[in-house]
Amino acid sequence: MTTDSASRGAHLLAATAQLIASGGLAAVSIRAVAAAAGVSLAQVQYYFHSKDALVEAAFAWTSDRFLAELAGVVDCPPSLPRLRQLVDRWLPLDQAREDRVRVWLAFVATAAGNESMAGQSAEMDESVRAWFAADLRELVAQEAAQVDDPEVTAAQLLALVDGVCSQALALPMNQRTVLVGRTIDPFFARLARTSSDHGS
Amino acid sequence: MTTDSASRGAHLLAATAQLIASGGLAAVSIRAVAAAAGVSLAQVQYYFHSKDALVEAAFAWTSDRFLAELAGVVDCPPSLPRLRQLVDRWLPLDQAREDRVRVWLAFVATAAGNESMAGQSAEMDESVRAWFAADLRELVAQEAAQVDDPEVTAAQLLALVDGVCSQALALPMNQRTVLVGRTIDPFFARLARTSSDHGS
Repeated sequence: MTTDSASRGAHLLAATAQLIASGGLAAVSIRAVAAAAGVSLAQVQYYFHSKDALVEAAFAWTSDRFLAELAGVVDCPPSLPRLRQLVDRWLPLDQAREDRVRVWLAFVATAAGNESMAGQSAEMDESVRAWFAADLRELVAQEAAQVDDPEVTAAQLLALVDGVCSQALALPMNQRTVLVGRTIDPFFARLARTSSDHGS
Repeated sequence: MTTDSASRGAHLLAATAQLIASGGLAAVSIRAVAAAAGVSLAQVQYYFHSKDALVEAAFAWTSDRFLAELAGVVDCPPSLPRLRQLVDRWLPLDQAREDRVRVWLAFVATAAGNESMAGQSAEMDESVRAWFAADLRELVAQEAAQVDDPEVTAAQLLALVDGVCSQALALPMNQRTVLVGRTIDPFFARLARTSSDHGS
């Protein structure tokens, strides 16, 4: 552990995100974060003046890390398999992704009652939709996907992914691929139909 | 306000659900519920021994009331407009439905870390999917909907609705119909295509 200020701040945010993932927002307090990060109360308070500020920063940190992870996938040119790979990063099919979905759910539930966080959440949703739509337009141009309206398909895909993520958390890990197989898999299978076999 | 024990219990659950809807789970305590319901702490404790028991009962009460409301719609025979009417009861397009979606989101976020609540949540999801699938099979038999696989369409519809509900909460009320117009509306438009115009 370094004493460099930015990374010490990140260390506290990582501890906060982990507390949210394992016990929900109720598990977060300045005291609990200090204990989890192995620092003093005063050190946490030096960076974050309130629990709310800490929680909001932890949400932003989680989403930045997720975007950085996605950037790795986005390095290769658009294709249907690449889009599917991106979507798979969302789904809680292992512990790391499950932790992230739990933090996201806590964020969404909190944002509903907090105007500035609601704005952030809506903006993030809109930029992911725009991203999906740009990919889909590219795939249509390449005749690599069957899409009537890229904006609609992008919005439906993001809503589908969000719904599947929240439903999957209620299932044991080994049943989650069944849910994905009834929702995301056939959504992509339909996109993969070329014009010639559409309607089959 | 009656002193009948069942309805007094219901009065406390209504107050709890209202507290969750306006301030999230953090707003709930035995004390806050007693104050909101205008009863003594001891009266709340007579019915509910802990905050967790109260919250779990409030979730069950909210979902029972929702099912009772849906039963009113379900009284008429299956049709695509009836299915759409059912789905519309979910969407947070007015204050009453927004309150319910907030309670649902708090439930989903809590259930993720609580085995018995996760089981309840997964069971509720599965019964709604089965219900949608039964309706869709009936519509296919009547040639009133274009559906390749009723189980898939039912699972996709529920995930889409859940995703739209959670995203809609982050938007101002007057922007939510735009989101519905990019997701739920085209989903139903596709179902409404008869075989003869499929692929158009």
